[in-house]
Amino acid sequence: MAKERLRQQIEFIVEIDKLKHVLRRNLVIDGSRRENDAEHSWHLAVMACLLQEYVEEPVDLTRVLKMVLLHDLVEIDAGDVFCYDDQAHIGKAAREAQAAERLYGLLPEDQAQEYLDIWREFEEHRTPEAKFAACLDRLQPILQNYHTQGGTWVEYKVPLAKVRKRLEPIKEASVELGEFVEELICDALAEGFLEEE
Amino acid sequence: MAKERLRQQIEFIVEIDKLKHVLRRNLVIDGSRRENDAEHSWHLAVMACLLQEYVEEPVDLTRVLKMVLLHDLVEIDAGDVFCYDDQAHIGKAAREAQAAERLYGLLPEDQAQEYLDIWREFEEHRTPEAKFAACLDRLQPILQNYHTQGGTWVEYKVPLAKVRKRLEPIKEASVELGEFVEELICDALAEGFLEEE
Repeated sequence: MAKERLRQQIEFIVEIDKLKHVLRRNLVIDGSRRENDAEHSWHLAVMACLLQEYVEEPVDLTRVLKMVLLHDLVEIDAGDVFCYDDQAHIGKAAREAQAAERLYGLLPEDQAQEYLDIWREFEEHRTPEAKFAACLDRLQPILQNYHTQGGTWVEYKVPLAKVRKRLEPIKEASVELGEFVEELICDALAEGFLEEE
Repeated sequence: MAKERLRQQIEFIVEIDKLKHVLRRNLVIDGSRRENDAEHSWHLAVMACLLQEYVEEPVDLTRVLKMVLLHDLVEIDAGDVFCYDDQAHIGKAAREAQAAERLYGLLPEDQAQEYLDIWREFEEHRTPEAKFAACLDRLQPILQNYHTQGGTWVEYKVPLAKVRKRLEPIKEASVELGEFVEELICDALAEGFLEEE
């Protein structure tokens, strides 16, 4: 039984290698290519370690790390949906729930349950950990867009109001990070990386 | 001061994006391309969460996660050194120490010290956390080589004795993971992914 347990864990570890092939719309910071979900998840995990001090409500860092490391795993089956593409969001929740069942279902039952719960917690945006994870997930692409002369904001002509709406979880999780992105948005407007309407 | 602190943290977060461009010798599991250090670090972090139960000595998982997430950061400046290239190891420690000073030095002083300490702890392979991190760092490329018909073992004609030597930290951290890789090596030999000498 012990061996079967390890076999399942290794099968999962091999399967999730596919996250390295799920491309996001965002560019990496030097602008040379699109970022993939594994790189994005790594970046959020480091950010969680470094920026924990700014959250309004105390968080269990290990839980946040588990959350951000695997928050996009469902995209192996369901694909990445661009955050500003309203059409692509139709049916997204159902596709992702099915993907979660398949992917986490590869793990031994106790771990499958643990990680399904963590993923659902992330999706519900209610606990301090989920709010902090959402904050990081919104903050990282802003840094990328800012450092690539507007990145997806320019490429997809995203209006300021939509960008602001997308940033709300940052302010909700952290006043200081909220103020920081507000300044960044003002700079981006001044630089012409983002349009008023 | 608070703003200056956050500015330093964000500068570090932007700088480490470069880890996504540091290529390792290993291929990703579908064999289509080489893996980069950010992807590798993400994979180790997930593995740490899932395989913690197999370690001989209890570990502080959060510390292990911080360790594996940033263990290769110095390669942004010092470059990746192929583990089986003895020549390239000359001067490696000094180059990496210099890189660590520059990169972690971007952070506020307390965090710079914390992460320098964690990196040095990883390099020294002495604490339970460092041993587990080393174990994962050796285990992941074996999975990649096994799933890419030998990968770097075949490409660089690495002899079995060298591979076995490289695997010692796995057995040291975990009897069960040690047995698992021993079986994998036997399979790899049988499949011709690895040569006896």
